[in-house]
Amino acid sequence: MNEIDQLIQLLAKLPGLGPRSARRAALYLLKRRESLLTPLAQGLADAAAHVAQCSQCGNLDTTDPCAICADARRDGTHLCVVEDVADLWAIERSGAFAGRYHVLGGTLSALEGVGPEELRVEQLVARVARDGVGEVILALSATVEGQTTAHYLADRLGQSAVAVTRLAQGVPMGGELDYLDDGTLSAALAARRPVGR
Amino acid sequence: MNEIDQLIQLLAKLPGLGPRSARRAALYLLKRRESLLTPLAQGLADAAAHVAQCSQCGNLDTTDPCAICADARRDGTHLCVVEDVADLWAIERSGAFAGRYHVLGGTLSALEGVGPEELRVEQLVARVARDGVGEVILALSATVEGQTTAHYLADRLGQSAVAVTRLAQGVPMGGELDYLDDGTLSAALAARRPVGR
Repeated sequence: MNEIDQLIQLLAKLPGLGPRSARRAALYLLKRRESLLTPLAQGLADAAAHVAQCSQCGNLDTTDPCAICADARRDGTHLCVVEDVADLWAIERSGAFAGRYHVLGGTLSALEGVGPEELRVEQLVARVARDGVGEVILALSATVEGQTTAHYLADRLGQSAVAVTRLAQGVPMGGELDYLDDGTLSAALAARRPVGR
Repeated sequence: MNEIDQLIQLLAKLPGLGPRSARRAALYLLKRRESLLTPLAQGLADAAAHVAQCSQCGNLDTTDPCAICADARRDGTHLCVVEDVADLWAIERSGAFAGRYHVLGGTLSALEGVGPEELRVEQLVARVARDGVGEVILALSATVEGQTTAHYLADRLGQSAVAVTRLAQGVPMGGELDYLDDGTLSAALAARRPVGR
């Protein structure tokens, strides 16, 4: 197998690229050697060399502790628990949270054999006990696995004095009622709030 | 900008990956350092170092002349002219052609300022005169630019004794008449052939 086929095979492993778009991407790269192919090779090598998991929160960054854990202006009393680094990034983009994070690394799943020891649960419990955390916000997916994990974590943290909260469920911004599923509508109705708050 | 953001920016330049899927791809890579991130960095570097344009036909390969030009079993009297290396790959995948290729590098386009000197036209004319080519098959897109280019090339090759042909136009395999455009139907009707040939 020559270098072109090998490159296509590797690109095809990326999420969102199938065999056909991997061929297209490989040609696109080979035609832009100086402007894209070489920089991307270098960028990947740099990322492999410098990016590591934060030993405190599980975030990925070029420093350990990560920039968020190291930032003294962030509010250490609020700890937001997320499944994945992608979720951390999404909350950071919203700009709505000034506390710190804890990346679980997934959700509990009996089907896929993911138990508490596969996730960063012990680190979370230890961190809450040690760091004077006042509130743990469970920002987990509104799926069966996410909610199972939330219940488990609430149980585990029940012995400590920490407040455990979760994200509100309801109608998303710009959401049209007509297109919402029954579960979301029920949750939004049950959690209705006085107008003007 | 740190290594992660840089990687996302580079990945977002690939065709088929937007900013969102580039973030997803970057995380996917960072979680698979040994199995994918490092091999892909190496694969890109290898491709940048070893892949070059064939000086005869314009194909991309790790050798010059490319494997097709160097293969003595290929029929040098049939020369298939394609716009792009992707088209060459597509015809090779079909397995229906045993001759050699000539990659133009695009089509004539007044709008985008692409004239004959931007394409490998002179090389084609010289090659036909030199290599004893008997038939030039114009495998160009059935678009205005593709057909303009085909007419131009047929003119340019008109002085030589070479036969100039183009791909048949008609109903694609599995195509339902009901869904075909008028142009294709007209072309298929005009080029109708006796049953049984």
